[in-house]
Amino acid sequence: MNKPAENKQWLLKQFVQADEVLGEQHYEMVSSPMPTIGDQQILVQTLLLGTSPAQRMYVTEQRTFHIAVEIGEVMSGRGVGLVLESKHPDFKSGDIIQATLGWQQYVALTPDDKTDTGKNVRTVQKVDQPVRPLTTIMGLFGQLAFSAYVGIIEIGQVKPGDVVLISSAAGGVGSVACQLARIQGAAKVVGIAGGKEKCQWLLEQGLCDAAIDYKSEDLVTAIASHCPDGADVYLDNVGGDMLDAALQNIAVGARVVICGMISTEYLNPRPDGPKHYFNLLYKRSRMEGFFVFDYVPRWPEFEIKLRQWYSEGKLKLVDDVFEGLESAPIALGSLFTGGHTGGCVIRVAEDPLEIPSL
Amino acid sequence: MNKPAENKQWLLKQFVQADEVLGEQHYEMVSSPMPTIGDQQILVQTLLLGTSPAQRMYVTEQRTFHIAVEIGEVMSGRGVGLVLESKHPDFKSGDIIQATLGWQQYVALTPDDKTDTGKNVRTVQKVDQPVRPLTTIMGLFGQLAFSAYVGIIEIGQVKPGDVVLISSAAGGVGSVACQLARIQGAAKVVGIAGGKEKCQWLLEQGLCDAAIDYKSEDLVTAIASHCPDGADVYLDNVGGDMLDAALQNIAVGARVVICGMISTEYLNPRPDGPKHYFNLLYKRSRMEGFFVFDYVPRWPEFEIKLRQWYSEGKLKLVDDVFEGLESAPIALGSLFTGGHTGGCVIRVAEDPLEIPSL
Repeated sequence: MNKPAENKQWLLKQFVQADEVLGEQHYEMVSSPMPTIGDQQILVQTLLLGTSPAQRMYVTEQRTFHIAVEIGEVMSGRGVGLVLESKHPDFKSGDIIQATLGWQQYVALTPDDKTDTGKNVRTVQKVDQPVRPLTTIMGLFGQLAFSAYVGIIEIGQVKPGDVVLISSAAGGVGSVACQLARIQGAAKVVGIAGGKEKCQWLLEQGLCDAAIDYKSEDLVTAIASHCPDGADVYLDNVGGDMLDAALQNIAVGARVVICGMISTEYLNPRPDGPKHYFNLLYKRSRMEGFFVFDYVPRWPEFEIKLRQWYSEGKLKLVDDVFEGLESAPIALGSLFTGGHTGGCVIRVAEDPLEIPSL
Repeated sequence: MNKPAENKQWLLKQFVQADEVLGEQHYEMVSSPMPTIGDQQILVQTLLLGTSPAQRMYVTEQRTFHIAVEIGEVMSGRGVGLVLESKHPDFKSGDIIQATLGWQQYVALTPDDKTDTGKNVRTVQKVDQPVRPLTTIMGLFGQLAFSAYVGIIEIGQVKPGDVVLISSAAGGVGSVACQLARIQGAAKVVGIAGGKEKCQWLLEQGLCDAAIDYKSEDLVTAIASHCPDGADVYLDNVGGDMLDAALQNIAVGARVVICGMISTEYLNPRPDGPKHYFNLLYKRSRMEGFFVFDYVPRWPEFEIKLRQWYSEGKLKLVDDVFEGLESAPIALGSLFTGGHTGGCVIRVAEDPLEIPSL
């Protein structure tokens, strides 16, 4: 292979402040020398990078999240990579992996180094039979799909006949969650999204039975009309007023799954909590949060199930692709401004199957 | 037996309004004729009545609770009674029972009538080997103890080594909950109560390892100092600021159990929700409410366990007794003004073992 001499990287330049939209101004692109590898290491080329709202929490000054990027460090993020060189017995040149690659073209990884798991989650997963296009791996067998899996199946415990309400339904987690709810036998899947176009897209893609546009509809009324007996499961990615509207419309024994709180997590001071939390008592219901990284040991199990549903045609990819490492800050920022449908993947380099010189 | 001609009853006269303290003015005491019984019925004399904060919700105009007393109806409440006369094969004169007797001296019950279960919960439990004094049955093998059982064991899932925080620790549910937490192997039981006297009482009675006086201490600071690594379980009977203070001090994987919300449930409009609910995400924790009446089929199982712990000396009764049916509204009101320690039981008639003419 033609190993280039330089490695473009996005370093964190400044923390994102409350109320600020994440963007290029928070990062600095630099050209670093190509990394070299030692014993038990692998050299990886970044092909794709995923995006997740949680990544915003990596770069706030409060350091509340378990993953935290310091000023001058490479921005953290998981992706799909190609092994270019290996000094580790389990990996060879040409392997496709998923790992926390960071926002950079090339990275030296130590697959057995678990010392920083829980902070930067460098878990390296070899992808044994890579599905093409590789964006499928990123969107359906990666972190966001695993979040949907944990939210809908592990915490939400969706069962046949349930009415399932999903916020950010047109997002990376939500779009998979809608499909998983149906796979689990939900009687009705109601998605919430911002704007008529996204709602139409949700219905056209067959992700939801009904879609609510939070920008033009009264949420409490709309949820009540689509879930007249209440929602059995609500997957919350938003928090704030949307969570409160959902809490006004839960069924007895409901599971409210807190996957994220994109509407409030960058407000300072924090807004008030959901007034209708008392329905957790009246409706004998549960509200529970989770981190997908707590489930790392079970990711292979999730992947097997997701691959099976994919091969059976029950699960499809609906992600948007942003081109080039340069687009990373804009791609991540778009999660907060609503400028995309499905998950949002950054293509850093072409799939090696397309590169004859490999 | 000498069957009296009249039956004193407390009827609901007016609904309790937001911000109002529940008292005698909401009830009217009347003398009604003695009830007579038909086939499959039993005539029961009320010996003891329990009190529970939930009873306030029976008499609010909003009818949000699943048990609702109408104007002119006998106030609902569970108690311990003596069977005076039986036309039901499973009951005989002299039996001691637990049932929803209502605030009255005598009542005709239909043990097999489950039609109103879920509204008035008339479940009749025969007490096979009545422990003396009978207040023990009311306080340790009755509804409040079952609430503590569900809160600590079923929902809270307290396990050895847990740090357990309990609000209203000096109340009827809290005082049993503290003991159950220790029985489950909690490393530390921290109780919250109002006033230095109650806190001293909690420590003197050996119910808690530490006690916090919410009237004189800053809750957030005090909880943090007693639970430096966070609380694994918080049993909430209070809601409002106390719940929020607890949510600021939960451990990873915590269970926040909503047993009641005495601080807010009679406020209209409702106050804001707990701002720090977002810790449910950051700490991957769960907040869940329950109704003890949903567990009616399991009450006998709970009673067996509670009786065993009682016989082993691990569980003791710490309840206050109010004398006479006349005291019922004041006794119930005292739950909201904090004027008692332990549970609060109303003695309506003497234990029949003390009445030779039976």
